[in-house]
Amino acid sequence: MTITPVAPTIFETRESAVRSYCRSWPTVFDRAQGSRMFDEEGRAYLDFFAGAGALNYGHNNPLLKRALLEYLERDGVTHSLDMGSVAKRTFLEKFEELVLQPRGLDYRVQFPGPTGTNTVEAALKLARKVKGRESVISFTNAFHGMSLGALAVTGNSMKRAGAGIPLVHGTPMPFDNYLDGLTPDFLWFERLLEDSGSGLNQPAAVIVETVQGEGGVNVARPSWLRGLAELCARRDMLLIVDDVQMGCGRTGPFFSFEEAGIVPDIVCLSKSIGGYGMPMALTLFRPELDVWEPGEHNGTFRGHNPAFVTSAAALDAYWSDDHLEKQTLVKGEQVAAALVELCAEHRGLGASFRGRGLIWGLTFADTRRAVAVCRRAFELGLLVETSGPKSEVVKVMPPLTVSPDELDEGLAVLGRAVRDTA
Amino acid sequence: MTITPVAPTIFETRESAVRSYCRSWPTVFDRAQGSRMFDEEGRAYLDFFAGAGALNYGHNNPLLKRALLEYLERDGVTHSLDMGSVAKRTFLEKFEELVLQPRGLDYRVQFPGPTGTNTVEAALKLARKVKGRESVISFTNAFHGMSLGALAVTGNSMKRAGAGIPLVHGTPMPFDNYLDGLTPDFLWFERLLEDSGSGLNQPAAVIVETVQGEGGVNVARPSWLRGLAELCARRDMLLIVDDVQMGCGRTGPFFSFEEAGIVPDIVCLSKSIGGYGMPMALTLFRPELDVWEPGEHNGTFRGHNPAFVTSAAALDAYWSDDHLEKQTLVKGEQVAAALVELCAEHRGLGASFRGRGLIWGLTFADTRRAVAVCRRAFELGLLVETSGPKSEVVKVMPPLTVSPDELDEGLAVLGRAVRDTA
Amino acid sequence: MTITPVAPTIFETRESAVRSYCRSWPTVFDRAQGSRMFDEEGRAYLDFFAGAGALNYGHNNPLLKRALLEYLERDGVTHSLDMGSVAKRTFLEKFEELVLQPRGLDYRVQFPGPTGTNTVEAALKLARKVKGRESVISFTNAFHGMSLGALAVTGNSMKRAGAGIPLVHGTPMPFDNYLDGLTPDFLWFERLLEDSGSGLNQPAAVIVETVQGEGGVNVARPSWLRGLAELCARRDMLLIVDDVQMGCGRTGPFFSFEEAGIVPDIVCLSKSIGGYGMPMALTLFRPELDVWEPGEHNGTFRGHNPAFVTSAAALDAYWSDDHLEKQTLVKGEQVAAALVELCAEHRGLGASFRGRGLIWGLTFADTRRAVAVCRRAFELGLLVETSGPKSEVVKVMPPLTVSPDELDEGLAVLGRAVRDTA
Amino acid sequence: MTITPVAPTIFETRESAVRSYCRSWPTVFDRAQGSRMFDEEGRAYLDFFAGAGALNYGHNNPLLKRALLEYLERDGVTHSLDMGSVAKRTFLEKFEELVLQPRGLDYRVQFPGPTGTNTVEAALKLARKVKGRESVISFTNAFHGMSLGALAVTGNSMKRAGAGIPLVHGTPMPFDNYLDGLTPDFLWFERLLEDSGSGLNQPAAVIVETVQGEGGVNVARPSWLRGLAELCARRDMLLIVDDVQMGCGRTGPFFSFEEAGIVPDIVCLSKSIGGYGMPMALTLFRPELDVWEPGEHNGTFRGHNPAFVTSAAALDAYWSDDHLEKQTLVKGEQVAAALVELCAEHRGLGASFRGRGLIWGLTFADTRRAVAVCRRAFELGLLVETSGPKSEVVKVMPPLTVSPDELDEGLAVLGRAVRDTA
Repeated sequence: MTITPVAPTIFETRESAVRSYCRSWPTVFDRAQGSRMFDEEGRAYLDFFAGAGALNYGHNNPLLKRALLEYLERDGVTHSLDMGSVAKRTFLEKFEELVLQPRGLDYRVQFPGPTGTNTVEAALKLARKVKGRESVISFTNAFHGMSLGALAVTGNSMKRAGAGIPLVHGTPMPFDNYLDGLTPDFLWFERLLEDSGSGLNQPAAVIVETVQGEGGVNVARPSWLRGLAELCARRDMLLIVDDVQMGCGRTGPFFSFEEAGIVPDIVCLSKSIGGYGMPMALTLFRPELDVWEPGEHNGTFRGHNPAFVTSAAALDAYWSDDHLEKQTLVKGEQVAAALVELCAEHRGLGASFRGRGLIWGLTFADTRRAVAVCRRAFELGLLVETSGPKSEVVKVMPPLTVSPDELDEGLAVLGRAVRDTA
Repeated sequence: MTITPVAPTIFETRESAVRSYCRSWPTVFDRAQGSRMFDEEGRAYLDFFAGAGALNYGHNNPLLKRALLEYLERDGVTHSLDMGSVAKRTFLEKFEELVLQPRGLDYRVQFPGPTGTNTVEAALKLARKVKGRESVISFTNAFHGMSLGALAVTGNSMKRAGAGIPLVHGTPMPFDNYLDGLTPDFLWFERLLEDSGSGLNQPAAVIVETVQGEGGVNVARPSWLRGLAELCARRDMLLIVDDVQMGCGRTGPFFSFEEAGIVPDIVCLSKSIGGYGMPMALTLFRPELDVWEPGEHNGTFRGHNPAFVTSAAALDAYWSDDHLEKQTLVKGEQVAAALVELCAEHRGLGASFRGRGLIWGLTFADTRRAVAVCRRAFELGLLVETSGPKSEVVKVMPPLTVSPDELDEGLAVLGRAVRDTA
Repeated sequence: MTITPVAPTIFETRESAVRSYCRSWPTVFDRAQGSRMFDEEGRAYLDFFAGAGALNYGHNNPLLKRALLEYLERDGVTHSLDMGSVAKRTFLEKFEELVLQPRGLDYRVQFPGPTGTNTVEAALKLARKVKGRESVISFTNAFHGMSLGALAVTGNSMKRAGAGIPLVHGTPMPFDNYLDGLTPDFLWFERLLEDSGSGLNQPAAVIVETVQGEGGVNVARPSWLRGLAELCARRDMLLIVDDVQMGCGRTGPFFSFEEAGIVPDIVCLSKSIGGYGMPMALTLFRPELDVWEPGEHNGTFRGHNPAFVTSAAALDAYWSDDHLEKQTLVKGEQVAAALVELCAEHRGLGASFRGRGLIWGLTFADTRRAVAVCRRAFELGLLVETSGPKSEVVKVMPPLTVSPDELDEGLAVLGRAVRDTA
Repeated sequence: MTITPVAPTIFETRESAVRSYCRSWPTVFDRAQGSRMFDEEGRAYLDFFAGAGALNYGHNNPLLKRALLEYLERDGVTHSLDMGSVAKRTFLEKFEELVLQPRGLDYRVQFPGPTGTNTVEAALKLARKVKGRESVISFTNAFHGMSLGALAVTGNSMKRAGAGIPLVHGTPMPFDNYLDGLTPDFLWFERLLEDSGSGLNQPAAVIVETVQGEGGVNVARPSWLRGLAELCARRDMLLIVDDVQMGCGRTGPFFSFEEAGIVPDIVCLSKSIGGYGMPMALTLFRPELDVWEPGEHNGTFRGHNPAFVTSAAALDAYWSDDHLEKQTLVKGEQVAAALVELCAEHRGLGASFRGRGLIWGLTFADTRRAVAVCRRAFELGLLVETSGPKSEVVKVMPPLTVSPDELDEGLAVLGRAVRDTA
């Protein structure tokens, strides 16, 4: 009997060792529709990862696809840097009408380059420029991006080491519940600020995620967020909410901070804002903060018109009323109910969960369990990923457009994956 | 008589003051095809700006459009982070077959996030990690991007000021001909390196553009680039060529450094690599440098499959043979001939020009003239932009697919704009 | 009647505005002996400031003076950089015999330049070099010096602002009791270290004062110091004790950390190590840490031989037995008893005190009171200074050689100053 | 036959490996007088090193010694931080009368801590504070000190590596004649400043030595210094002259910059300002720059009164007239004449020399020769040290009070040492 060794794929021979998701999910995807992806063998996968939050409206959503194809067919301008374009105007009008006005928000809109790290860089630069200070406060287990400015306020030590330079001008503070309720909220932060001998460089801003997706699905309580907003106002620091992963309805409302009733000074959006999974990002800020010089922050792909088209179509389809928001909360309860059951069943494993809207995290006493569960889920046709500093959390994040049946199906597979890895 | 004041547009009321090109070209573009853009009034503009180098194959190129529409129609996966996908595999195969192999290049390919600043950040991080040193040498009037890592090696003082923190770990050296031939190439750089008392922090890498597009169309001689490559090899510094704007055929060959016969350690590509003007970027490096940990540099939009599709189609259409490269050089001569004539005509204005392939710069003794020329060109239906630290250079950069007639037409308009601003 | 305005002194016309103590004590001192200073009018002041800790053996101590004069008379070498000298050898022998050996300490001795900030700079450089990491942990209200390395780990915001650059590579942690017992010791520090997602740059070292003299006479409990030492050992961080102000017997034993029973990796000494108030400093470290290259840290005044002479004489006179140590503790009780009484008397003022050995701090509910008390004390012939971020603490720090009667006298004056400022 | 191994000395067993001069000169010095040092065996050495410039008036100068002993005998206050003292007042009056007024200089005087690196730190902090900018320009082969601020503007790579952190906020420029006359003075510096796209962070200040002592006895021409001063004025940068080693008459006049006729904004003095080799330093600056807050830069040993006493005595003895200055120039010619002869004799060795006043450097084609010469000189009873990045320069720097006979004697020994090492 002869064993023919498998030839390495071009991903293995040509793509850099930095590649990651293709290692967790060793197949080659070809098509995708709604909540499902299909590999080139035609095998279907239920996608409870949703492009790490970039596919809130599902894969190749037909409502957006129609608008996109029509735009491309008629040779609508594709690339236009930050020139004026009809597609950009339409987007701005829809964003104003459907997002800002109903929420009483008066934000200026910057197109900072099309990715999450681009919008975070723009936010940090602007905050520092406005306040004339360098230091920014971030939180334990924060994730804000890979370019040097964003990386400096990101927690993960492996990713920080990739910088190759000391990452400074940022100071971490404990995220909500980080110290297990052993100390009052903001005790340390407030003392540092009020004590002129504390050694803290006075911060220009605080950057926070309302739910830390990459950091382990850590959920900030609304009261904690209000406390933070109040502290920022009182101590002359700008509050930046990085809503790249949790915005665009992931937690229910369009902005994840709405539930807390706070109004950040600066908001970062990307991922699902483009609607169709194409690169797009926004930086929003109060008009008084708009101290940019023309072109002071620029970039080639600030005007990706196909993304403006699908973004506007998504706002029309999903944010003209509160249907999606309500559905997200209902589906969130469906997930929570399943996780309650699952944790009860696996009480011996120290299983527990947390989440909001359609972002949930499941952990086990054995921190290695989450990786095994995700691997098994993949074999069973479900895409779920881990998060947290030790990859110890199974992150459940389906498209918001997932159907109740698909949700049930996926949660059942997840349950089986947990059982199978016992 | 009543004067009705013009109501401000939504760009003026809602978009941040940072917007720039929409100020130079005060109209609203709608459609585009080949070398022409059309505003919503249906007015046509000959585009000699080409998306700042992102549209080497013209607007909405029909060869690529067909592949793109077909992919979208059949629900090819749009967004897949860095998972394996058929579209990515096809791109990698084409890139290997049509770009790397014919040139004898063995580069690993990283998808670092889809913009120029993302690939520069990845390149700098990798170089620092490999060498265990922080310092990077850049050149006067370099432009590498707006996120903090890239901005630190960018020359423009207005953009640097936007950082809000001191930009360190970079040291500028004189670009080719910066000191007007008054000093031998690399005299200062070499002395700093060889003298252990010079105070220069030993650099991990040198980052260079072969032609500085944003910096004023400054063209490095091949011999200077060879000298630089040789210096890097001799002094243990990695050579990074930022080919974001000059790559993908802008100067003739696929990579702008081919003419000099050098092989950089790391190459940054973006802009036209996607083919259709959609966000995409690559970081290429020698296999020995591939020391990344899995996921050490990540990002949501590393796998924008529609761009892989148009990119592969563009490689197929334009880089299977040397037709495009030859045509670019021929058209470059056409531009040069016109500029010779124009400068001769305007000798009194101290007009001069420089360039390579299809990137040319035109300057005048009066540094304010370039802005006036571009403004007048716009009125006459030609899109050209300025570059250089004082916006003193008219930058001529049509799509590589421009026809000889279009070239003639645009150059004639340019000539008229110069005359009209006398 | 004519009023003759007082001509400004040369201190006012020629010395920089940065001058400070001469503002609190507006006179011109001429002579000094033991615990007393005399101004040029012959007025005597009882000195409970002791050169900010540089005069533990009193002013112009006759035992040391004899050795000094004899050395100078016979033209003993005064200045010798770091050459070998008889005076240096004698000092090293005495230091080994009387300080290191009896305490079982095996430290290498570096002469880092003669001031406190010099020894702190040397300690930080060495720790970073040994560990290959940049970050150092300091504590709230720490004071380590004014050169950039030491200033970066100093808490006072006014002094930090003097740097003119962002002070980075340091992170403050709460000093003992900083959070008023509301949180377990090291809870936050330990969580940051154990969580790979915390965002804390892994520290090379921790620098601490056992009693923060400038920071407000904040006294660390021995158990807290042991906890810190244990944390450093467990988490691979070097422990640096800055004993510049609290060393040389200020708290009783020669080193202030002896009471806690810990052995720091690196110790900084200056101020009273020279004995006679002349500039001298030492950096001590475990032999394994001695990775310096010859001359890697140098400086002109590392070999101030007259200070070696007085230093050796002081070791002989005061550290051959435990007499001084015991006396310091006895006198400390004398101070404490007086402060108990004083605070009882002024309970209405919210007076409280803390201290160890012969370093004590007295505070009042009204933070402005301490300044008034010190000003009044000066008028009454007693030199005491404030400390703390708001100058809210009266710092009582007489020479260790103060007599019980002088102590009583000074404490009585202090009591009167408190009463007089009511 | 038994060989008794030599027991290691306490310098070897107890002092840190960082020790340096005691390695070059392996003996133990005991006494010193004028231009001579004596080791404990009674062997005399002619000192052409002069405490690296700290002993311009020779060892234990009897004129100063008398004042010092008298002060100590009468219990003049030794240590007084920055309080007003009679000794400090006398010093300030003498400094005003004998140094500032005759030269028409109106400088404020700061006592920044007693060493060279302290005064440089103060100068840099002040310059950054005044200008609100971080960057400072230094020169190739500069030496300014070992604390982090001063080290960042020091050239030597071995010493820079000792920092353990990246040294930033400084940029080196070529010192006079660094590029061997191949390029006009300040060509590169000026281009960087005038070009808003150069990437140079706008400097707060320039720090320069008029003769680089540690860097290899590199002598700036007066015209170059004038060019630099003019450039600083034109480009809004403060000019800091670090006169720590070259001030107090080393080059002839009190300040080394007098010959060039320039008036720096800030001047750093230390080493010989104390007169007797005891620690003392000054930072001088134009009154308009005196923006310090009281106590914003402090330190324990700012008020070392014995050094004020010897400093005032030295000003009285040597700077009441121009005798010393003239003698220094005459003796300088004596040295130059000897070196002319020596170089002529050793033409085959590629010997050459340079210098001013009583600071001279002698080099050979073989860069290792200088070390051998100094070693041999020591054996022959002459102390001379090397300088320069490769220790390739023999540095001849006798006390200014050296007699012509001593000069002849030492130069003869130097000549023999050169011959003996052939």
